[in-house]
Amino acid sequence: MSKFWSPFVKNLVPYVPGEQPKLTKLVKLNTNENPYGPSPKALAAMQAELNDNLRLYPDPNSDLLKQAVAKYYGVDASKVFLGNGSDEVLAHIFHGLFQHDLPLLFPDISYSFYPVYCGLYGIKSDPVPLDEQFQIRVADYAKPNGGIIFPNPNAPTGCVLALDAVEQLLKACPDSVVVVDEAYIDFGGETAISLVDRYPNLLVTQTLSKSRSLAGLRVGLAVGHPDLIEALERVKNSFNSYPLDRLAIVGAAAAFEDREYFEKTCQLVIDSREKVVAQLQGKGFEVLPSAANFIFARHPRHDAAGLAAKLREQGVIVRHFKQERIAQFLRISIGTPEQNQALVDGLGDL
Amino acid sequence: MSKFWSPFVKNLVPYVPGEQPKLTKLVKLNTNENPYGPSPKALAAMQAELNDNLRLYPDPNSDLLKQAVAKYYGVDASKVFLGNGSDEVLAHIFHGLFQHDLPLLFPDISYSFYPVYCGLYGIKSDPVPLDEQFQIRVADYAKPNGGIIFPNPNAPTGCVLALDAVEQLLKACPDSVVVVDEAYIDFGGETAISLVDRYPNLLVTQTLSKSRSLAGLRVGLAVGHPDLIEALERVKNSFNSYPLDRLAIVGAAAAFEDREYFEKTCQLVIDSREKVVAQLQGKGFEVLPSAANFIFARHPRHDAAGLAAKLREQGVIVRHFKQERIAQFLRISIGTPEQNQALVDGLGDL
Repeated sequence: MSKFWSPFVKNLVPYVPGEQPKLTKLVKLNTNENPYGPSPKALAAMQAELNDNLRLYPDPNSDLLKQAVAKYYGVDASKVFLGNGSDEVLAHIFHGLFQHDLPLLFPDISYSFYPVYCGLYGIKSDPVPLDEQFQIRVADYAKPNGGIIFPNPNAPTGCVLALDAVEQLLKACPDSVVVVDEAYIDFGGETAISLVDRYPNLLVTQTLSKSRSLAGLRVGLAVGHPDLIEALERVKNSFNSYPLDRLAIVGAAAAFEDREYFEKTCQLVIDSREKVVAQLQGKGFEVLPSAANFIFARHPRHDAAGLAAKLREQGVIVRHFKQERIAQFLRISIGTPEQNQALVDGLGDL
Repeated sequence: MSKFWSPFVKNLVPYVPGEQPKLTKLVKLNTNENPYGPSPKALAAMQAELNDNLRLYPDPNSDLLKQAVAKYYGVDASKVFLGNGSDEVLAHIFHGLFQHDLPLLFPDISYSFYPVYCGLYGIKSDPVPLDEQFQIRVADYAKPNGGIIFPNPNAPTGCVLALDAVEQLLKACPDSVVVVDEAYIDFGGETAISLVDRYPNLLVTQTLSKSRSLAGLRVGLAVGHPDLIEALERVKNSFNSYPLDRLAIVGAAAAFEDREYFEKTCQLVIDSREKVVAQLQGKGFEVLPSAANFIFARHPRHDAAGLAAKLREQGVIVRHFKQERIAQFLRISIGTPEQNQALVDGLGDL
């Protein structure tokens, strides 16, 4: 605390990211990173850009990457917004589109950064409870609101909302911006980007940190109606003209162009997930249906914090949220087959 | 305009960065980039990091880089804050430290992003006129205020404020956060970081985009009392946990470690500047005294916009601000000897 702080900083409660341990021997299944490396073509593109031109500013609009994303999804580049990780994209969305008199709606169990953004920008929110099976009930969102946001698949549950349910929600709330946060969509969900042309209130966000295995590069995006994109560009250009560096622009563009590698590695993660789910169920875990690169599981006879501590002792890190309704769950990222086996072995007989 | 925008977005006036032309043949003297490439050691460090580990999130605290900066300046790492370019650092400073009832003070002719941040965060400001010689008068800032910020050397004038004048200002305003924005300090000024231990209200910002020739990588920093740094960390951790990517962290750290290359290239730029100043004076230009990697010059008989257009026709881009008091000036970045000659030739006989 300091007399120099703005009043609002005193009450700010920052987001707490998953631990990034500096020991390399740990089996790190706590921050939903991809067990496989980025596309070799992405690495090659960055290699070619690693030269004296780094003395020059990047393209402030990152047009090369906008075009790669636009081409991949078959939309116009005017519908694409980019940021320094999808967290920055989300921050600009909260700042530019969610400051209204009515409260923002999001699931009570959801990405824990949403309430942090509300604190940062003074946005009222009204968390909407998931149902008893931890699913989003679309009907619950059809009430006056200043915007709607939810991850799909949801985090940390991993549960996916079907595309027709997303469309139902868009129809029910035509006067609200609806943000579908698709950080994990490529591991089993169907993207809502196909709906962007028909719903001017829809904004879809994605990240290159998960399915495209570039968490270390910091690139995120949003796709939506050009009016929504323009609001985000205004905020971005009032904040930082050049959020993406030269290496990130070319690396991310090459990652989007390498569809084959992307599809292959996503499928490997999905196959591993199904195997881990079966193994944990074999040990008596209840595992929520996951369409993500992680699973959310609880054991009827073992305390989640105790299990996390036991795993940690054996060098396996998973994530445990001390939060109402989910305090008995563990969120476990899907790793390589070897990492997943270390998890299963680490749990031992239960 | 869209019904979905937050009310404040409608009135937001974004910053306009200097043009980043996609034609490579142009002599680009408009955005104060360094004519020399980054340290070969910085490139080598990024090269070593360009691998499958990009699948992993970076260290959210960028400790490696904080330590490199701390070591370079002989301060504790708890006094160092980092961001995705110094523009992001400045944005967090405005957000976290400048929202007060009294107006923020900055020079009337100054970095044009400052009023943009005020618009973004709803901060009142009271521009303080530079004197007739375009110098900062310290005494003018000794009045009630909600914070003070100025570039040193100032932009776009290039004029530097001596360190004892900075200290005078700190003494005169002990109850205000004073931010010295040292983007260009290494080309002829004396950093105020040496004062940080004695003035808890001082925050010094710097960038790696100019003297360390890494504009394409996006890294900026602030050095100040740990209480000020903590306010910035709170804002940062409520906005984006991982603003610096893995390549930027190692590249920037290596750039700080390579003092020899840094000093050599800064001196080359300074030597070129002195030569260009003499050449322009020979053509009848009035050149403000510059301690930066650019000069600010006007010609008594030629319109600045006309001169800029004439240069552009010959493939040389400089920056012209259509702004009161300085509309007859051109801001010209110092390039390589060949680029500077192209500028001089492009001006022709005046």
